[in-house]
Amino acid sequence: MSNRIITISRQFGSGGRTIGKEIAERLGIPCYDYEIIEKLAEESGFAKEYIAESSEYISSTGWMSGAFIPRDRNGHSLQDQLWFIQNRLIKNLAEAGPCVIVGRCADYILKDADVSLLKVFIHADIATRAKRIVEVYGESNISPEKRLLDKDKKRAAYYQFYTDAKWGDSSLYDITLNSGSLGIEKCVDILAELY
Amino acid sequence: MSNRIITISRQFGSGGRTIGKEIAERLGIPCYDYEIIEKLAEESGFAKEYIAESSEYISSTGWMSGAFIPRDRNGHSLQDQLWFIQNRLIKNLAEAGPCVIVGRCADYILKDADVSLLKVFIHADIATRAKRIVEVYGESNISPEKRLLDKDKKRAAYYQFYTDAKWGDSSLYDITLNSGSLGIEKCVDILAELY
Repeated sequence: MSNRIITISRQFGSGGRTIGKEIAERLGIPCYDYEIIEKLAEESGFAKEYIAESSEYISSTGWMSGAFIPRDRNGHSLQDQLWFIQNRLIKNLAEAGPCVIVGRCADYILKDADVSLLKVFIHADIATRAKRIVEVYGESNISPEKRLLDKDKKRAAYYQFYTDAKWGDSSLYDITLNSGSLGIEKCVDILAELY
Repeated sequence: MSNRIITISRQFGSGGRTIGKEIAERLGIPCYDYEIIEKLAEESGFAKEYIAESSEYISSTGWMSGAFIPRDRNGHSLQDQLWFIQNRLIKNLAEAGPCVIVGRCADYILKDADVSLLKVFIHADIATRAKRIVEVYGESNISPEKRLLDKDKKRAAYYQFYTDAKWGDSSLYDITLNSGSLGIEKCVDILAELY
């Protein structure tokens, strides 16, 4: 029987990471999120800060046609190289055992892998998420609504760029949940039950 | 406490109607689907066949700019008039008591009503749906895949036309479920549990 993997895509501030951690804990399996950044840093030699910024968010140069972006002799940008390393890493994690993987297009990366996938998307209304990011990440001089929309836009663009699909479109997932209306605990219950 | 209503939007052939009927039966509340067509026929005087074709699917003239479409003196087409009657009918049903309402933009129509909504979208992959529509509706001289895509396209266009939102976008719903990967019974379990 192939490994059972839960991939969690999530809007910024929707509590998707918390949901992932809680399900993993309840099921007694690992949850990979920041750990992926650390492993990527080890494998690639890139700085963690660069990886955190570039492994899920399109960089400001990432979608430009390219004359000014440094590329290797195969035409790959730094972000592309990170994508390839991330691909291999996520496949290795999934093949090593059952786990939860948060973000990083894992749903797409694992689509042809020999694993049994439960593909999840977590979202919530702007007001709920704005409140949450201030609680979790603190205030900043940019309004929480603007921070949310900016992050969402860059995540959606990254997903579109590397997968050619529309991030958040229900047809890509087995289940999508509104953590704002249902509550984080109920989302964890449903997913743990489904798994 | 306001009435608790489940609205089920669904891709053609995804089993959304069956899921609606089963939850309603399990919860002991009514499920409105074909019944809406019958009530609309009574109220509007339109033929049931016309209503079935025009209460969820954009008509071939529905999105034309309009020079050739018959309109009343307020500029409303027949389909618009049906939309207004359908709006009132769905609000009345929801205010009368807890129920399940399948299709017909009920999620949008009830967004400001004094009811407690659980907004659901059911979808499935093309192969599962093609198999299902042949089982449920029989063969036709058009391929099941073509029938599916045609119905989906018209439902999406109808939804977009009257609500200005993208049918199937996860952010519109509390929960979306892939009945192809999860199975119809599991979808019923999750929704009955959530309710």
